[in-house]
Amino acid sequence: MKYIYLLMYVLLFLFAPTIFATESLMPDKKPPLPKAASEALANSISTFPQFTKEQVKESTPRTSEEWRNYVHSRNAEQKKKIKKMKKELNVDVELIKLNGVVTRKLTPKVITPEFSDKVYIDIHGGAFVLFGGLPSIEEGLLVAERLGIVVYSVDYRMPPTFPFPAALNDVVTVYNDLLQQFGEGNIFVGGTSAGGGLVLSLVQSILANETALPIAVYAGTPWADLSKTSDSLYVNEEIDNVLVTYDGFLQSAAELYAGKKALTDPAVSPLYGTFKAFPPTLLVTGTRDMFLSDTVRVSRAIRDSGGMAQIDIFEGLSHAEYLIFYKTPESETTYRTMKTFFLSHIY
Amino acid sequence: MKYIYLLMYVLLFLFAPTIFATESLMPDKKPPLPKAASEALANSISTFPQFTKEQVKESTPRTSEEWRNYVHSRNAEQKKKIKKMKKELNVDVELIKLNGVVTRKLTPKVITPEFSDKVYIDIHGGAFVLFGGLPSIEEGLLVAERLGIVVYSVDYRMPPTFPFPAALNDVVTVYNDLLQQFGEGNIFVGGTSAGGGLVLSLVQSILANETALPIAVYAGTPWADLSKTSDSLYVNEEIDNVLVTYDGFLQSAAELYAGKKALTDPAVSPLYGTFKAFPPTLLVTGTRDMFLSDTVRVSRAIRDSGGMAQIDIFEGLSHAEYLIFYKTPESETTYRTMKTFFLSHIY
Repeated sequence: MKYIYLLMYVLLFLFAPTIFATESLMPDKKPPLPKAASEALANSISTFPQFTKEQVKESTPRTSEEWRNYVHSRNAEQKKKIKKMKKELNVDVELIKLNGVVTRKLTPKVITPEFSDKVYIDIHGGAFVLFGGLPSIEEGLLVAERLGIVVYSVDYRMPPTFPFPAALNDVVTVYNDLLQQFGEGNIFVGGTSAGGGLVLSLVQSILANETALPIAVYAGTPWADLSKTSDSLYVNEEIDNVLVTYDGFLQSAAELYAGKKALTDPAVSPLYGTFKAFPPTLLVTGTRDMFLSDTVRVSRAIRDSGGMAQIDIFEGLSHAEYLIFYKTPESETTYRTMKTFFLSHIY
Repeated sequence: MKYIYLLMYVLLFLFAPTIFATESLMPDKKPPLPKAASEALANSISTFPQFTKEQVKESTPRTSEEWRNYVHSRNAEQKKKIKKMKKELNVDVELIKLNGVVTRKLTPKVITPEFSDKVYIDIHGGAFVLFGGLPSIEEGLLVAERLGIVVYSVDYRMPPTFPFPAALNDVVTVYNDLLQQFGEGNIFVGGTSAGGGLVLSLVQSILANETALPIAVYAGTPWADLSKTSDSLYVNEEIDNVLVTYDGFLQSAAELYAGKKALTDPAVSPLYGTFKAFPPTLLVTGTRDMFLSDTVRVSRAIRDSGGMAQIDIFEGLSHAEYLIFYKTPESETTYRTMKTFFLSHIY
């Protein structure tokens, strides 16, 4: 966030006349706070920094060096949050390698009996560029503590240094390693945003290779189409507090990740791949989420292929806020739902 | 529609300078056609009449006489569509009375064996004021034909002549009559929009009176909160092709229906009532639907009360377009899903 603030000052100084002139012509697109969301969510929304799409576009890094600085700055900020969460939650964190891939094993103090021989593979989000290192365990910590399950958070390689297929290869490697260790019928996989997209790509890769499937998967507001196709990218632009706009940061991150692949290649955008024979899939999104459409399209693709997808949507919730605002009832409900969903699919 | 067209000409003539002046200052809020929706839906959206919120507000009737004329004109237009649908679909329509309430019994040519001793009670939409008479069978025709089940469409009384509780009383009367005829475990209930809201009110009334519940219910994009509370009423304003805005027509229709009740009274806005012990509930909405939030809030209320709610959402779909554009794949999927859902809950 620090990086964005710094840029904001510079931008405000440079572009103030343009920005204010434009704003005076534009009606206020922002709706009032969602009255039917929880009070905690409404409060979190009102105190979260608000950026315009122009600000997001202008603050997007342009060179590899700018990207590295940007990522470093955002990750440093995020690390503070994770250290605070680590103190609050009763989870032990152990840095390990699985077949060469950096992974963190998260062990909660209390394990749910039904999960005693099960593990959860956590694939972090961050637009395929952010939250490497310690920040990768943000959602893993919540899953470990709230579900009572051992979690392996994959610290996969990312652009600008490692574009596609490095991240997916790392995730597949960890899956295969843990499958060998724990055996069929003992693995859950999940992730949010870019992590949710990688979960879907992992399942498609497992199906293509005819490896054993996970028991069930979770894809929270998955970035499943890297091309600017989904309707909510337009409708919820500047309504979604977290993503704000596709132009700029997300568009550039998508291109960095895809590398030489087209953005509509099924390998990078799982929505263009097959959803046949998917395991039971839990999807989570919100009415203000710019990835509402990606999530909805995945739910349709799975159901239309004869599979089982449960979709949980929260009123007034922007992208991944059930994770970002982890003390809201919306967050508690998300992971309680995940626990019930996983328990109901153990065989 | 004729009435709106007529008004449009008058309004265009009277307000043209204001409208064009305002529009030139406003950015185009309309997103591009949803690329990931079906081609048929995208075509239907692009040929459907597009109104601004100002046009809808200005065309709202103000006196009881204006309401009667408006309703008469809209119903006459809708009747043409229904007559066309009746010719296309293999459904026999018989006008009957059930304990004094005007009802139409719809019998399809082919009955699904599992539904041979079951019936479906259809509660039509139309903002609690529209689509009395023959138009009341619009969704009933589709349900009868596509599910292969006998349907009873309730032609409940409406404002301005009959405000709350007339409509709900009629629906409860028909339910009790058919419950006595067909017995417990043989009745499904469903409806769209205001009809979806009445379905929820009916279930709450059944639970309060400890009558036998329906096997399962369907509430398509239910109008479940008549006060302007839901977030998508703001976010999807002018994005939703069908409803366009809450101000004007919907606000006035809500007040006409509620009569002496407050708009947040649980009797008229089921979202303020209890969802405990609800039967399995199928909910349908779209990403552009102004009642997306009402639908989402109902799904949460049922799940948070320990019940089972399935929510089906379509990409780029505005309010009730799965019903209005009944030849789209989105419409086919809706009623195929309903059939599967009902079949899976027969006991």
